[in-house]
Amino acid sequence: MSVTDSSGTARSNSRDHAERFRHELHEFLRIPSISADPAYAADMSQAAEWLAGNMRAAGVQNVAIMPTAGYPVVYGEWLGAGPDKPTVLVYGHYDVVPALMEDGWHTDPFEPVEQDGKIFARGATDDKGQLFIHVKALESYLKTTGNAPVNVKFFIEGEEEVSSPNLRPFIESHLDLLKADVCVISDSSMRSIDEPSIMHSLRGMTYMEIEVHGPSNDLHSGLWGGAVHNPALALVEILGKLYNPDNTIAIPGFYDDVVPLTENERAVVAKTDLSEEQYKASTGVPAVWGDANYTIRERISARPTLDINGLWSGWTGPGPKTIVPAKAGCKISSRLVGNQDPHRIFDLVKAYIESITPPTVKVEVRLITTGRPALFSTELPEMQAAARAYEKGWGATPVFTRGGGSIPVVADIAELMNIPVVMMGYGLDDDGLHSPNERFSIEMFHRGIETAIVYLEELSTSGK
Amino acid sequence: MSVTDSSGTARSNSRDHAERFRHELHEFLRIPSISADPAYAADMSQAAEWLAGNMRAAGVQNVAIMPTAGYPVVYGEWLGAGPDKPTVLVYGHYDVVPALMEDGWHTDPFEPVEQDGKIFARGATDDKGQLFIHVKALESYLKTTGNAPVNVKFFIEGEEEVSSPNLRPFIESHLDLLKADVCVISDSSMRSIDEPSIMHSLRGMTYMEIEVHGPSNDLHSGLWGGAVHNPALALVEILGKLYNPDNTIAIPGFYDDVVPLTENERAVVAKTDLSEEQYKASTGVPAVWGDANYTIRERISARPTLDINGLWSGWTGPGPKTIVPAKAGCKISSRLVGNQDPHRIFDLVKAYIESITPPTVKVEVRLITTGRPALFSTELPEMQAAARAYEKGWGATPVFTRGGGSIPVVADIAELMNIPVVMMGYGLDDDGLHSPNERFSIEMFHRGIETAIVYLEELSTSGK
Repeated sequence: MSVTDSSGTARSNSRDHAERFRHELHEFLRIPSISADPAYAADMSQAAEWLAGNMRAAGVQNVAIMPTAGYPVVYGEWLGAGPDKPTVLVYGHYDVVPALMEDGWHTDPFEPVEQDGKIFARGATDDKGQLFIHVKALESYLKTTGNAPVNVKFFIEGEEEVSSPNLRPFIESHLDLLKADVCVISDSSMRSIDEPSIMHSLRGMTYMEIEVHGPSNDLHSGLWGGAVHNPALALVEILGKLYNPDNTIAIPGFYDDVVPLTENERAVVAKTDLSEEQYKASTGVPAVWGDANYTIRERISARPTLDINGLWSGWTGPGPKTIVPAKAGCKISSRLVGNQDPHRIFDLVKAYIESITPPTVKVEVRLITTGRPALFSTELPEMQAAARAYEKGWGATPVFTRGGGSIPVVADIAELMNIPVVMMGYGLDDDGLHSPNERFSIEMFHRGIETAIVYLEELSTSGK
Repeated sequence: MSVTDSSGTARSNSRDHAERFRHELHEFLRIPSISADPAYAADMSQAAEWLAGNMRAAGVQNVAIMPTAGYPVVYGEWLGAGPDKPTVLVYGHYDVVPALMEDGWHTDPFEPVEQDGKIFARGATDDKGQLFIHVKALESYLKTTGNAPVNVKFFIEGEEEVSSPNLRPFIESHLDLLKADVCVISDSSMRSIDEPSIMHSLRGMTYMEIEVHGPSNDLHSGLWGGAVHNPALALVEILGKLYNPDNTIAIPGFYDDVVPLTENERAVVAKTDLSEEQYKASTGVPAVWGDANYTIRERISARPTLDINGLWSGWTGPGPKTIVPAKAGCKISSRLVGNQDPHRIFDLVKAYIESITPPTVKVEVRLITTGRPALFSTELPEMQAAARAYEKGWGATPVFTRGGGSIPVVADIAELMNIPVVMMGYGLDDDGLHSPNERFSIEMFHRGIETAIVYLEELSTSGK
């Protein structure tokens, strides 16, 4: 049987079993696997067990519920394609965020309802429905041809919604087990069903706190005001020098490691550009801002930023309080792009802040958290295979996009395993993830399975 | 009997009755007249009654407990000197701030104890002890010579510690009753017993809030960051322009109405100057700051200021939160000197802030409260009379000082009654007012009575 015949058979099988697949997904969605609330610990176990059982039934081998310091990882593999074929690692998560009827749900968040072509339930799109696509894609091969075009490993965690505190140590201590040629993650969304997208870049993060100290205690502004450098004033004077007048970041060396956008990459980004009117309507700002040398979409996804996330000093209650505050502080964070190193950025910011702090106050610059940016070339065979999978399996030409946010697991896998991560999100931007009435399009669930089937085939021909 | 004989007799009498005066003060101090706590309303009444009774016994006439919208004013007068003699209005307050043993008092705050030459009790220096000086000074004349050199009116309120909300309306509706040539207030302190001071200037106040608005809601900094002018950034950029590089205030017109310090006035201020080391030790700042054209004492008392009193935006809790905040705000206030008008200053600040706010955000500048500055010439006869009273009654040459803070009643009396206010404080800077173990020097209490006696005499010869 040719490879193409094989995927055709699998796709056909996935259509025949569409209803069963959905009913299985409903079972999965009924388990309130809320990782944030310890009251749901038993449900977390049940969800891991259910998934492991479903994977076994699908033909996945060596399925194991593997402990971590928190909730376990569900692992499984099918290596029947042999060592000459590529291995794809599917990452996903079986935990969900909390959901309460009183938040505005129209139906029980843990009793899935199909209506208007959508499945309504907590976790429908984030991420149970999307990760399940890959299980059903592999099953559709194994239950028909008994074979699949590539080797597949599943790496499904239970703590994504609580910032994956145990994921990185798990990867570090299981590098051999997880070893693969490419990682695919379906945990994101597209703008409309006809505009599938492949995310090939995410921004990293350096998150810091700055605190300026002046007098030992808050001072009476009448008795002392006029000869003390007000720490809040010193802070705003310092922060007022973060940017140049052209809205570029003024920190020396900040842009040194930024990989410049090629003309070709800019053309790709331009496919999803936002107009000023769209941006203003989406955010409510009176005018767009930023480095005029870049388009809006470039600024919010392909270029680094530096934002003040919080600011505090002195009296913030109602009415007047006439003090010179003892201190003033802020949280600032930088979204980073390839190949900026978050620790080097911290060093640069710290050195700059210290260099512009006057001797009238003392300053402290603290590192809070970091995340590496992730940037994968769209020319990689694994990326091109994904593009063809959408063409053939989804029926639309995908766009390559850059995510402005940060998904730590992507940078961790790229860094620790040294493999590309292909983000093929099958949700819609308005699926309401983390909100009441989260939903997942039934059509997209099934098209997702067929696209995932084709992707395995395209990966096998893209060479190892 | 000559005038000098008269004051000598009164002073002698005050010495003879020193112990009784203190015992009376103890009675006054035993009444917990806490204006901030409604639970003490009965004690407030009792304090007013006690004071009225003591004034009557001292020979004060037409003593009345006069209602306000809050706690009453205790009024009384002795007009026996006749219309050809000046009338002095004594202002003070019979209310005190709260005091609890658990705050660190060594003895019951409302059971006065004399120890180490001091009276320990809440209100000892602020202001029962100090206002009582004037009652006993007048008594010392009336009980001996049956006469006094000038007319005296007492205007003792019960809401000073809660910002005198009903004082200004009371003055406005009792201008005839309160009519006088000079007001004397003893509700402040000197550095040491040998350095008496007369305060002839207080700073005014314009207190404002500024709020910068950007997006309609907090935005995800990853999804939107880079094309929105972060309101916290916009705010710090605006506030970073409040001052010029030489630490002068950058608001156009801000200094227009400031009465320049004469060389003579600067020489007076220089008598109480602070060294950099003293200022640093008192405040804990690493270095002194401000307009280098003025001394430290000038900056903190005779020059206007502009301080940030509070600052807020976005996330201020622990850890990271990656938002672009929807808004950012601050409280700023300006300490004003003669002849700056607080409302004109608000208009100038508002116009400047609005003029430097970029179109990428919206700004709102709100007025919170105002207070007029008060500046009285040290050359006024009432001021020179006070200086002579210290020479003769206290036994030390006083310095004229400028208070950096604001005492609204001073500006209100000056403005509404058009008379000078002479601030003759008989406390010590370390009397612990508003703190546990508030105290008042027994020696200063008695020297204060003698100085007040001499002041009445000196006023009578300074002409009406």
